[in-house]
Amino acid sequence: MGIRVAVAGASGYAGGELLRLIAGHPELDLVAATAHTQAGTPVSVVHPQLTGLDLTLGATDAATLGDADLVFLALPHGQSAALAAQLPGGVKIVDLGADFRLRDAALWERYYGGAHAGTWTYGLPELPGQRAAIAASDRVANTGCYAATITLALAPLIAAGVADPADIVVVASSGTSGAGRSAKVNLLGSEVMGDLSTYKTGAHQHVPEIKQATGADSLSMTPVLAPMPRGILATVTARPIGRTHPREVLQAAYADEPFVHVLPEGQWPHTAATVGSNSCHLQATVDVDSGRIIVVSALDNLGKGAAAQAVQCANIMLGIPETAGLSVFGVAP
Amino acid sequence: MGIRVAVAGASGYAGGELLRLIAGHPELDLVAATAHTQAGTPVSVVHPQLTGLDLTLGATDAATLGDADLVFLALPHGQSAALAAQLPGGVKIVDLGADFRLRDAALWERYYGGAHAGTWTYGLPELPGQRAAIAASDRVANTGCYAATITLALAPLIAAGVADPADIVVVASSGTSGAGRSAKVNLLGSEVMGDLSTYKTGAHQHVPEIKQATGADSLSMTPVLAPMPRGILATVTARPIGRTHPREVLQAAYADEPFVHVLPEGQWPHTAATVGSNSCHLQATVDVDSGRIIVVSALDNLGKGAAAQAVQCANIMLGIPETAGLSVFGVAP
Amino acid sequence: MGIRVAVAGASGYAGGELLRLIAGHPELDLVAATAHTQAGTPVSVVHPQLTGLDLTLGATDAATLGDADLVFLALPHGQSAALAAQLPGGVKIVDLGADFRLRDAALWERYYGGAHAGTWTYGLPELPGQRAAIAASDRVANTGCYAATITLALAPLIAAGVADPADIVVVASSGTSGAGRSAKVNLLGSEVMGDLSTYKTGAHQHVPEIKQATGADSLSMTPVLAPMPRGILATVTARPIGRTHPREVLQAAYADEPFVHVLPEGQWPHTAATVGSNSCHLQATVDVDSGRIIVVSALDNLGKGAAAQAVQCANIMLGIPETAGLSVFGVAP
Amino acid sequence: MGIRVAVAGASGYAGGELLRLIAGHPELDLVAATAHTQAGTPVSVVHPQLTGLDLTLGATDAATLGDADLVFLALPHGQSAALAAQLPGGVKIVDLGADFRLRDAALWERYYGGAHAGTWTYGLPELPGQRAAIAASDRVANTGCYAATITLALAPLIAAGVADPADIVVVASSGTSGAGRSAKVNLLGSEVMGDLSTYKTGAHQHVPEIKQATGADSLSMTPVLAPMPRGILATVTARPIGRTHPREVLQAAYADEPFVHVLPEGQWPHTAATVGSNSCHLQATVDVDSGRIIVVSALDNLGKGAAAQAVQCANIMLGIPETAGLSVFGVAP
Repeated sequence: MGIRVAVAGASGYAGGELLRLIAGHPELDLVAATAHTQAGTPVSVVHPQLTGLDLTLGATDAATLGDADLVFLALPHGQSAALAAQLPGGVKIVDLGADFRLRDAALWERYYGGAHAGTWTYGLPELPGQRAAIAASDRVANTGCYAATITLALAPLIAAGVADPADIVVVASSGTSGAGRSAKVNLLGSEVMGDLSTYKTGAHQHVPEIKQATGADSLSMTPVLAPMPRGILATVTARPIGRTHPREVLQAAYADEPFVHVLPEGQWPHTAATVGSNSCHLQATVDVDSGRIIVVSALDNLGKGAAAQAVQCANIMLGIPETAGLSVFGVAP
Repeated sequence: MGIRVAVAGASGYAGGELLRLIAGHPELDLVAATAHTQAGTPVSVVHPQLTGLDLTLGATDAATLGDADLVFLALPHGQSAALAAQLPGGVKIVDLGADFRLRDAALWERYYGGAHAGTWTYGLPELPGQRAAIAASDRVANTGCYAATITLALAPLIAAGVADPADIVVVASSGTSGAGRSAKVNLLGSEVMGDLSTYKTGAHQHVPEIKQATGADSLSMTPVLAPMPRGILATVTARPIGRTHPREVLQAAYADEPFVHVLPEGQWPHTAATVGSNSCHLQATVDVDSGRIIVVSALDNLGKGAAAQAVQCANIMLGIPETAGLSVFGVAP
Repeated sequence: MGIRVAVAGASGYAGGELLRLIAGHPELDLVAATAHTQAGTPVSVVHPQLTGLDLTLGATDAATLGDADLVFLALPHGQSAALAAQLPGGVKIVDLGADFRLRDAALWERYYGGAHAGTWTYGLPELPGQRAAIAASDRVANTGCYAATITLALAPLIAAGVADPADIVVVASSGTSGAGRSAKVNLLGSEVMGDLSTYKTGAHQHVPEIKQATGADSLSMTPVLAPMPRGILATVTARPIGRTHPREVLQAAYADEPFVHVLPEGQWPHTAATVGSNSCHLQATVDVDSGRIIVVSALDNLGKGAAAQAVQCANIMLGIPETAGLSVFGVAP
Repeated sequence: MGIRVAVAGASGYAGGELLRLIAGHPELDLVAATAHTQAGTPVSVVHPQLTGLDLTLGATDAATLGDADLVFLALPHGQSAALAAQLPGGVKIVDLGADFRLRDAALWERYYGGAHAGTWTYGLPELPGQRAAIAASDRVANTGCYAATITLALAPLIAAGVADPADIVVVASSGTSGAGRSAKVNLLGSEVMGDLSTYKTGAHQHVPEIKQATGADSLSMTPVLAPMPRGILATVTARPIGRTHPREVLQAAYADEPFVHVLPEGQWPHTAATVGSNSCHLQATVDVDSGRIIVVSALDNLGKGAAAQAVQCANIMLGIPETAGLSVFGVAP
């Protein structure tokens, strides 16, 4: 008899990945999966890759979810707070939305609109001290997918004083699942295959989260939509302070981490190598011409960028092995 | 202490998938992985998705492989026999190549050239009686990827007498990993993305294997190269005999199978739903205009079509649970 | 001062391709482009590839369109008849929809529903006698994209008596633009990339058109959705009659055709080679095992399968050079 | 009787695109196309998209090429100088390689190795004064594809004094055809589909060319390989000087240019919109958080980034209309 978990918002891509991970998890029992408009539909109709999972989507309400020991919320931004308030106090929650990530209410209101719901423990265990904080929490705000990719690349460099926080420039490309599962013309296969484009150029709502998590003071972050279903590749550049090589800092920061890998010299991250896993691959160099630090970071936006990261947090919160039910290895090619 | 297994030919795509599955298998220990030209290279350089697996490729010889309890051979066609002859008698073998699949030596020689190496137990557990035969064997010839896809769709219909074996027409499309990892201009991303083409049109070497496994007497099989890394979708058509609906026959044949799923009516197979899994998805209908039976079959050519299927056979041969280390669920989107 | 043409339904993919071809056509002047919900929007916003074309979408009505010498209708099936009835009698029309393709009203009603609108000259100039018929017509029904691909492969073989019309089996894969530009979850890039699936399996509405155009008596046609924006690859198989090689028949049929190419022996069609062109590439063989004729046919579903074909018909109707404004060559890779 | 042109290095992707453009050009006659190892092969075998072009590849030597009025060189870097020296003095040349782009011999030697061959007129007509210089030249060095994309975005801003040349950061993603047509495992479809990765990170050989063409003093340029055949998307960021909006500068610079388009406000460049064309699409903003200028630039690496750009230069050199044989419009979707 395992630990009872439920997923709210199970019809989207992050929700589907959560179901897959929970179904293969040795210590978690999936007791409910809910969806707004598709309640009553078998999971395998909504997610054909889960054919063989005998479960029907329920309604997203406290009655359906409240019986679990831990609930994952994979809802559209802005909907977590209301549902969380209805769940019994003893139910642990990992929220994959943005609602509880920011400490600064004014920034929340400027970038997302609406009232700030509050601040939960930030769900990135690889940040210093954060693993213990997650273990002690009943409420965890999972990172955004861009934030995870960029923070793992940048936070140790700023913390170590080798990267200037005043001038960070990032371009990060995401597969289309990062844009969600809503029917939109600009996300049709005909439009995205063979195409690259930026979006929310110059004003992405994840910038405050990334600054908060990395310690950056100024951050230009340009997101690019790439013609592939999964994966984020971030190129993070910063002006160096001193002469410590950024690779050494990253190696020291992640030497004992099971899921964050600084690649051997000469090998650069490939998003495809992380698909389906909870791994993040990193490499760093100093640019020959400009002298800027360049860190490249790759992960699966639905894996370490969303669902797998959420399971890692849940494992820590539940006191079970942190790597349980998660894969270090990607599915490639 | 698990069962000791080794992989020969570990630098290719099927080899890499074998390593991934073995690394996550609860009862198998990977003791050696070998490759011809890349001996001495760390596995994670050849397969970046296996970053975190601390193993270096060895030489493909009996000294390196002979210490294992079971060896997977993922070698180019024609190379398995020589190596198998050198391995100690007590070592079990699953061969992913074509060398030992055919019973008819003359057909082997016509389609593959060279001398016929012999015939091993055919590694498709879902065929009637085959699970027991595999369990009793030390040498198993894994199915080809097209053969697995088509046989699962067709064999029960011919066996049940509802499909005419004299006039089978198949068109089957494969992702590019089915064409292997050799550097060829026609397999460059620039050439295959956005493109569909047939190959070996009218004379594919897998036809004798498919006829042998399905009981078809006449088989037109046209393979298509599709712009995706993984997956095979086969459209199998046959003239019906009698009025039994083909779907009923397939449901009866696979009711107790963990990895072969006849989808609910109205749902048709998607290759993406099987990526990374050992599952095969099937659906069948009778064509309105022609009256022909149409069965559509989807699987992952590196999964149920190669490496995962090989692990399933190994599990049976080793007397451990048949589903150990294998996933029913695909990684999608 | 060129011939005045207009496009109704210009916001879809076929409509966009028509605009591109007309903009580059030496003898046609684009005087209006209309769209239902996007009237008032600049063309280059709806079709960014047409940036530089200074035109705003108008309303789809006779007032906007009636001033042209020739109107292309690229409307959803079922909407052409009403609009055509409102256009002045002297305006020539090429309809890219299905409304006027079928001769048999009963078949129309069974496959499409609603009342049959009538029958116009069938717009495939390469069929015997059809070029003259198109030249003499003011109303032409352009072929469907699957119908063009399959008819060019099959019609000469049936006409020559070398393929048995009683048992045609076709599997044809299309890029996603063939499914249109409506926002649907199953057409999202995240869903289609890396995926193959059949659709309308066993009952596609284009079967009656293909039978009418090819002379087939029985036709099993399974359509597959392929992960690429453009292109159709059809594998057409038939039982042979006599010993004439199908390639000879096709070569004779198309020896003088500018846009239909029987490839040199040993070369097989690639859809990518036809993208952006009005060409169809063909190759044929006799299957070693089954003895069936296999013809493979490739074209661009928006080119020879829709917009370029429509321009070819318009050129013929207008008495200008048939190849004007059309490319034989594809844009590849 | 048109102007006689020839293409050396016609078997690669840029060579194939040159042939396509020349075949459709109203004033150019293709008299020879040559290739090193594939001399003697019909063009349509090497480039199936050119089926219908009746021409056989010749040997890459002065005898085959010297009879033309203008020769395009699409050779591997380092091979143009030797061939150019053998061509008769009256033959105009456009070199698509890097050999003659740099003015600084020391930089050439550091980034490319070998001796510097010299400096030809730089083939980017949209740079101030460059159109006239090209018109007066018999020898033109076509831009590199990254250089074209980035220079069109950046040069006017530095020239106008609104972007600080001391701190330019660029991330630019290219389709796979930019990596050429050599058979390499890392360029296989199986490897690149579904994947993003950087390459030559921190030390790309095009940096000196870009600095020379843009006036940048310090340039960090990270190239990314994207899963699509064609297209480059560059995100160019710079610290602003003063308050002039970068969009205004770009609009002024390109107001009269036929092929460089500053998109309407709110519309951002898509590479797919430029495929097959000679167009470059630009948009600019000022980043909300960092205040950096962000310019996004998209073009077809084989179009405005190589072959179409070369034809534009040739048109200017030959005194024929600059837009002859070139398309403003892309082939999309």
